[in-house]
Amino acid sequence: MKVNVQWLLLCAVLLASPLAAQKLDSLMIRRIFDEALERGHSYENLRELCKDVGHRLSGSPGAEKAENWGAEKMRSYGFENVRKQAFQAPYWVRGDVERCEILENGRSLNITALGGSVGTDDPVTAEVIEIPGTDHLEGFGREQIEGKIVFINKPMNAKLINTFHAYGGCAGERWSGAAKAAEYGAVGVILRSLTLRADDFPHTGSMGYNDTIPKIPAVAVSTNDAHYLSDLLKKQKVTATMELSCENRGETTAHNVMGEIRGKKHPEKVIVVSGHLDSWDIGEGAHDDGAGIVHALEILRLFKQMEYAPNYTIRCVMYMNEENGSKGAQAYADSVKEQGEIHLAALESDRGGFTPRGFSIDARDDQLEYLQNFKKLLEPYYLHLVEPGYSGVDVGYLKNGEVTLIGFVPDTQRYFDVHHSANDVFENVNRRELELGSASSAALIYLIDKYGLPEKVLD
Amino acid sequence: MKVNVQWLLLCAVLLASPLAAQKLDSLMIRRIFDEALERGHSYENLRELCKDVGHRLSGSPGAEKAENWGAEKMRSYGFENVRKQAFQAPYWVRGDVERCEILENGRSLNITALGGSVGTDDPVTAEVIEIPGTDHLEGFGREQIEGKIVFINKPMNAKLINTFHAYGGCAGERWSGAAKAAEYGAVGVILRSLTLRADDFPHTGSMGYNDTIPKIPAVAVSTNDAHYLSDLLKKQKVTATMELSCENRGETTAHNVMGEIRGKKHPEKVIVVSGHLDSWDIGEGAHDDGAGIVHALEILRLFKQMEYAPNYTIRCVMYMNEENGSKGAQAYADSVKEQGEIHLAALESDRGGFTPRGFSIDARDDQLEYLQNFKKLLEPYYLHLVEPGYSGVDVGYLKNGEVTLIGFVPDTQRYFDVHHSANDVFENVNRRELELGSASSAALIYLIDKYGLPEKVLD
Repeated sequence: MKVNVQWLLLCAVLLASPLAAQKLDSLMIRRIFDEALERGHSYENLRELCKDVGHRLSGSPGAEKAENWGAEKMRSYGFENVRKQAFQAPYWVRGDVERCEILENGRSLNITALGGSVGTDDPVTAEVIEIPGTDHLEGFGREQIEGKIVFINKPMNAKLINTFHAYGGCAGERWSGAAKAAEYGAVGVILRSLTLRADDFPHTGSMGYNDTIPKIPAVAVSTNDAHYLSDLLKKQKVTATMELSCENRGETTAHNVMGEIRGKKHPEKVIVVSGHLDSWDIGEGAHDDGAGIVHALEILRLFKQMEYAPNYTIRCVMYMNEENGSKGAQAYADSVKEQGEIHLAALESDRGGFTPRGFSIDARDDQLEYLQNFKKLLEPYYLHLVEPGYSGVDVGYLKNGEVTLIGFVPDTQRYFDVHHSANDVFENVNRRELELGSASSAALIYLIDKYGLPEKVLD
Repeated sequence: MKVNVQWLLLCAVLLASPLAAQKLDSLMIRRIFDEALERGHSYENLRELCKDVGHRLSGSPGAEKAENWGAEKMRSYGFENVRKQAFQAPYWVRGDVERCEILENGRSLNITALGGSVGTDDPVTAEVIEIPGTDHLEGFGREQIEGKIVFINKPMNAKLINTFHAYGGCAGERWSGAAKAAEYGAVGVILRSLTLRADDFPHTGSMGYNDTIPKIPAVAVSTNDAHYLSDLLKKQKVTATMELSCENRGETTAHNVMGEIRGKKHPEKVIVVSGHLDSWDIGEGAHDDGAGIVHALEILRLFKQMEYAPNYTIRCVMYMNEENGSKGAQAYADSVKEQGEIHLAALESDRGGFTPRGFSIDARDDQLEYLQNFKKLLEPYYLHLVEPGYSGVDVGYLKNGEVTLIGFVPDTQRYFDVHHSANDVFENVNRRELELGSASSAALIYLIDKYGLPEKVLD
């Protein structure tokens, strides 16, 4: 059996004298929730980010505004060492023209360009062919695909209870659908939007090309119009015209924004709490990931408000460019490595501002088991999940076998209703659900800060 | 230690050969969820109930329409023994006039009459006095209350994680506020709406009078206007005019609607699944309790669809008159008693159509522990709660020390946002959340039907 010092310490505190310690901790956690639920700032901060800043894709005016908003907000709360970290990010612009029309009946489909798509110099007009997924391209073959617009109509699997698993089963179609279809001579791609809802909103998201193959334009179509198009194709030949003004403009400078509360015992060791500040350029990035940003802000604000002086340095990191490059997360992880900075844990909130259910832990077994000791303190707040699993795109770059990575897990049922669409707006966030997310994460970070975590394993 | 036959049977099946039994059960539960999530009827049934029937307070045209809809729906699914049970219910009508205006500035408040309130023959005009709750009436005393309109401005406690607990702390103000204020000579009551949300919707709900004291009119005011009124009262004298056309019209005939699948082994023993068919007369009764109605319907439909022949008789009961009298639940319980019918368990869904979290059990310890053996089968569906607690208003009347009462527990954060308001409409129900509720309840009922439950305890 492997043991280490922190583990023994936790056992001593939580098990040998469980009542006193648990009583103090449960009181502190209760105070965290009281403060968040009665006087929390998450909701008003989200309103500002959504309504005063708006959407904020890397390189857009909104991105710079958001970076300034984030830094100013941290300063206003008295966070220390507030700073921006510059890095180069992909720069993509949608432009004003997005059109996909069925020539046979003049109907315009509800579409939006996928992020990173090339535009159309001249409108692309071609017959549409439906495939149930890119793994069927080979079966259709070049003779059926060449010169056509490929309609990838792969629905998310409604049977999966965790909708992120359903999303995971389709995200590859969005990322590489155009590159794969182009290999067979396709001239454009229409992707069924990645959502479980039947409605009229197209859902964008990132895609990539293969540099050795022609780059063809790609759009997402709303699920209602995916049904319409599929039905029409069963009856007749369909020709579509796609016109997109989007373009890749190389690189832009973007900035992660961070601030912290310095630890009183171990200032050199860092606990990160984070979300991503950028968003897609439709909607307001309310759940994705305004919620994560205000969660991360609120954790530190709550600690300051309650005059809790942490043992470790608690750092709020607002990553930029999660949506189309993750260059912010890479830049942050690179600087951590260069400076030899020790990170104890890193929590990411990037699954929306819905009712909390717990945490997903990407760490060693001993670290996971250590965190699972806290379950009794978390369950009164309906936080039942402290389970091994994925943490998040941005904190994932910190993975080194020592840092404990944590994904905040809210209820997943409604996330993909709004994700990457014009429907991801402030009005679709519930105040209590959002504030509970801040309090839940703050509670776990408090426990980690108080009890530490197993770092290097001693055999 | 107390033991009984079912308990030993369960131990034998679940513990002595856990793998085979759990494998079969987990497959069955998986099928239930698949069917509900891919081809469930809950959402479309709710659309019909909300949009084709609409609201449905006892005695209203909607109530009769709903009863016919319910019976017809059960027949269309092939439920057996579909029938209506007539009973006498209170008959209250809102009428067209609802007005509460501040004389000093002409502002109309967003109000709605509480259900059961008397109307105003002539408009009631009086000075408004704010109290933080009816327990402060004695402190104010008759001299400050007499001749005034009492504004009961008691907010729900936002700190309580389960919003039903916060509601419970205020529901008494609504029920007895007018009767208590009238004891001190008040001429009207304005109640702060029972919701944690700040918005413009007034929330109605039931109230009662004391026959020995004058009956004064009572309205709920939106939380935004409660803030407004409270602020105004800090600055100046406020006089309000209340005008209400509502009236109590005695009694009306209402009907519970029920149908069943007869048990193949124990047809004489009943497992009830239920919700209430009536709703308040504003909004559409979507979450309260259209959701419960379609949950109950769907449990039986799923069993029939999957050709699962239950051991016990599974009865879908649509109670009428939960909102203003519970006379339907009383009539049902009376008939069960009269006929000496044995009820094994009764599940009620009356907390909205939100993401399921589990079940609240009102039963003996041995029955509770028996159900807790199923937790491992339920947790993959994020059903973590199988805990002692309140079941529901309607099934509560069946309580006799033998029947196991079960409340379906969804997430509570958004329920009181819409509860009893014009905002409780179909559009505020999420399809997946709703269908998951049906599947969750069906899964538990399947397990109860398969393994039975401890009935009489043998010492």
